[in-house]
Amino acid sequence: MNQQTAQRNDTTANGDSAEDRVRIFDTTLRDGEQAPGFSMDRRAKLCMAQALETLGVDILEAGFPQASPDDFAAVEEIARTLRTATVCALARCQTGDIDTAARALEHAKSSRIHLFLSTSPLHREHKLGMSKQQVVETAIASIEHARKYCADIEFSAEDAMRTEPEFLIEVFSAAIAAGATTVNVPDTVGYITPSEMLERITYLRQHVRDAHKAVFSTHCHDDLGMAVANSLAAVSAGARQVECTINGIGERAGNAALEEIVMALKVRAPHFGLRTGIDTRKLHPTSRLLTQLTGQVVQRNKAIVGDNAFAHESGIHQHGMLKHRDTYEIMHPQDVGISETTLVLGKHSGRHALRQRLEALGHTVDDEAMESIFKRFKALADRKREVRDEDLEALALGQDPDATGPWHFTQLHTTSHLGGSASATVKLRHDDGREIGEAAIGDGPVDAVLRAIERATDTDMVLTGFQVRAISEGGDAQGHAQLSARHAKRDWHGSSVSTDIIEATAHAALAIVNRIERHAHERSDAPALGATA
Amino acid sequence: MNQQTAQRNDTTANGDSAEDRVRIFDTTLRDGEQAPGFSMDRRAKLCMAQALETLGVDILEAGFPQASPDDFAAVEEIARTLRTATVCALARCQTGDIDTAARALEHAKSSRIHLFLSTSPLHREHKLGMSKQQVVETAIASIEHARKYCADIEFSAEDAMRTEPEFLIEVFSAAIAAGATTVNVPDTVGYITPSEMLERITYLRQHVRDAHKAVFSTHCHDDLGMAVANSLAAVSAGARQVECTINGIGERAGNAALEEIVMALKVRAPHFGLRTGIDTRKLHPTSRLLTQLTGQVVQRNKAIVGDNAFAHESGIHQHGMLKHRDTYEIMHPQDVGISETTLVLGKHSGRHALRQRLEALGHTVDDEAMESIFKRFKALADRKREVRDEDLEALALGQDPDATGPWHFTQLHTTSHLGGSASATVKLRHDDGREIGEAAIGDGPVDAVLRAIERATDTDMVLTGFQVRAISEGGDAQGHAQLSARHAKRDWHGSSVSTDIIEATAHAALAIVNRIERHAHERSDAPALGATA
Repeated sequence: MNQQTAQRNDTTANGDSAEDRVRIFDTTLRDGEQAPGFSMDRRAKLCMAQALETLGVDILEAGFPQASPDDFAAVEEIARTLRTATVCALARCQTGDIDTAARALEHAKSSRIHLFLSTSPLHREHKLGMSKQQVVETAIASIEHARKYCADIEFSAEDAMRTEPEFLIEVFSAAIAAGATTVNVPDTVGYITPSEMLERITYLRQHVRDAHKAVFSTHCHDDLGMAVANSLAAVSAGARQVECTINGIGERAGNAALEEIVMALKVRAPHFGLRTGIDTRKLHPTSRLLTQLTGQVVQRNKAIVGDNAFAHESGIHQHGMLKHRDTYEIMHPQDVGISETTLVLGKHSGRHALRQRLEALGHTVDDEAMESIFKRFKALADRKREVRDEDLEALALGQDPDATGPWHFTQLHTTSHLGGSASATVKLRHDDGREIGEAAIGDGPVDAVLRAIERATDTDMVLTGFQVRAISEGGDAQGHAQLSARHAKRDWHGSSVSTDIIEATAHAALAIVNRIERHAHERSDAPALGATA
Repeated sequence: MNQQTAQRNDTTANGDSAEDRVRIFDTTLRDGEQAPGFSMDRRAKLCMAQALETLGVDILEAGFPQASPDDFAAVEEIARTLRTATVCALARCQTGDIDTAARALEHAKSSRIHLFLSTSPLHREHKLGMSKQQVVETAIASIEHARKYCADIEFSAEDAMRTEPEFLIEVFSAAIAAGATTVNVPDTVGYITPSEMLERITYLRQHVRDAHKAVFSTHCHDDLGMAVANSLAAVSAGARQVECTINGIGERAGNAALEEIVMALKVRAPHFGLRTGIDTRKLHPTSRLLTQLTGQVVQRNKAIVGDNAFAHESGIHQHGMLKHRDTYEIMHPQDVGISETTLVLGKHSGRHALRQRLEALGHTVDDEAMESIFKRFKALADRKREVRDEDLEALALGQDPDATGPWHFTQLHTTSHLGGSASATVKLRHDDGREIGEAAIGDGPVDAVLRAIERATDTDMVLTGFQVRAISEGGDAQGHAQLSARHAKRDWHGSSVSTDIIEATAHAALAIVNRIERHAHERSDAPALGATA
């Protein structure tokens, strides 16, 4: 659902929180992205933001601009690019944060500044060193400052569920009076149960002054496995915004999973009597996109988007006793965008068929990228009889190893012996014209390839993560290699796809080296930021 | 907690369901194991059953003996082996099923037969073709028949949450009168919300005749992400048994996760006022064991047992603002058995140190296995400077490739070229004395190795799954290779560990071939089963 429609609904309902529309606030690129292992570069963030807009999220939290120049640049680019979703930036209750957030959002069609401040006794004492009075004053001053830039202001009371309920009333009443249009009640430590959440939101909506002037929101963490149920309890009590992430990623055990909340509201519509603007048929493709961008898989038994979530569809029925579809199925795979046919293309398929299928899978591809993908598609189709959706997705997301640079392989040869050491020979060409050959032995071919690349490019790396998975079946299945390595105290991520796992691994490693080298150049062009307040 | 203690508690409470003890009924080896990708062989099931008993589950559902001779044999072996947990076998409401279940449980110290029958209109019509009256009569007849074998009888009303509440009262009243000691209310399709579950269990406990004579139980599926919250709502309403699985595995989106339920009851003890017999410090090791036995990982952001669940512990704090531990932490890693130190052993460590560490990690190792593990530990320590807990766990679980057979590698050599085909040369020795050398080319070295092994052993396999993951950091990290292949219409699983991923993959493939060949022999010794009724 686009922003225009969302705003029309809001206007119609005239601030009445009893309306039946729940706003989906996605924080995949902020809370999700800041968790270990889920960091994304600017290109990946933009790709994800576009997919989230197509999915129909109402508000998209794009990052925390004050955190780093990279974060600032990503928020700014997303703000420039999106057309319908409201782009949101996070800021502490500090002038510098707010100014930076406003600057990052300058070019957004629709924008929101999201302020947060801890309110619980534990956080007031140990994190902020502030009295209750200081907390209230800081919130008011920050909201008033942010309102100078933006009419859409969200205020979050961090650790709200461990805050004295009476103090929450005071804080939220002051926030609304100062101009906050959304007040968020996070369960920061993932501590609460649904019955407590229902009670708390009901109590707040009854006692906060001018509660009807703001949208109540929740933001639940899954530390005890109840984030989704807690979020749904909040909307049952009148909250009309839910903060969530694709695949439930986020700090620690993550946030409430967007796809589970949306499908629960849809499947149990008669029970909840609520709706969202999400196009549910985009849920599965969006989940897969995130998996491929971060290299972090969802477990097989994950609700809605796990490989087994609809496993009764693939002929596996409980003891073969299934005689009627609805006996075990409360939703259909098509509802969440799982395509029934995955075998589509072969070596004789042309550009048109390829682009059509990619678009059906949710990938927007420009002409230049299309050429690179088509070239690799043809090479793959020569090696495989059947090119499946999984293969196409990997092609669409995988960088063309030859198109990026500055380093390219011209030769790669590895050998491996039982119980003995492995060896690798590489020859690399740099865009500046150098051509360097190197060899190394190692503990297995992956280690050997990494060492040879390190030598040739003079780049130190420590392997921190390594995974290869077949993305389809059969001996000619493609392997998706994902590598993480530490260099200059930072984690770098590279992935590649090939039917040869050593080749996939080598390309993933070279992608990391290329990323490190390109980043060194990009940094010199980064925008200068105001000092943190 | 052991069975004696559990029974003492039951006796003390004298059937009063208001007592504060929640029974943990683990169905990892039944509902969990029957999900695609989670099948385990007899050895893996026994290993898991022992770990579950050590964890302290009250009832362990070991399988569905009528389903297959393999299932029968696994239940029988677990029944013979366990000392404190009640071993439970599943049976349809059919004489043949019940007789087979009873036979499998014959040697158990404490046993339960678990009968299930669908009660919802949809299932009565489309699955059973039975009237309400027939459902009640069948339940009564089956419970009475099962009581001849066993005093501990559980009756499950399949699809209970979509069954008319009044009919559920009729069925459960009849079941208790016929001798059922536990009545289970499953949310078979994962459809319900916590508020509905609370209401339903409360209503049933009020209206079922002689409700106090049976323990009320629930069994929740996670299709909408609420299995844990629903299970906790059931115990809040007076249910005193929860059916759940390690890592939440099970049909489709899986069952309620045992570790989340147990930790929620513990962390929020003042809220729930309930307790379990689980030793929570065994939760993390048990979860890892299941992961390694099935090859199915939990996602990084999984509650309690995911890699990031306690990520604030590893120095990653929200924007570095953490000044007090409890500001973001509601439980400690040690509470769930995550060890603070993972670096333990090196090449000079001896047998004693190795065994001690393995035992701390929850592995019971007999002398014969110890010799094999120690030999591989020494070989690994020669190749790696630091041998970590992850490495030890892999050693303890990984079969020694040379100790199983009948096939063993004597030679393995692979080569791989950029863009070209790969080749593999293998030489294999069979326990019957044959020695066979073969070579093959392939689409990458994995494909080549598989083809060469197929040729040498004359075994057809289609690769259905492939994954290699580094289990620690650095170039000398071990790779854990997991392969699935289809042979004779069945899925087979093999895994192995090596610092050389090609070597690990080759050993995993040979493990599959060995398993296929050993299975052919075992089958001829399988017990004859009564015909299904």
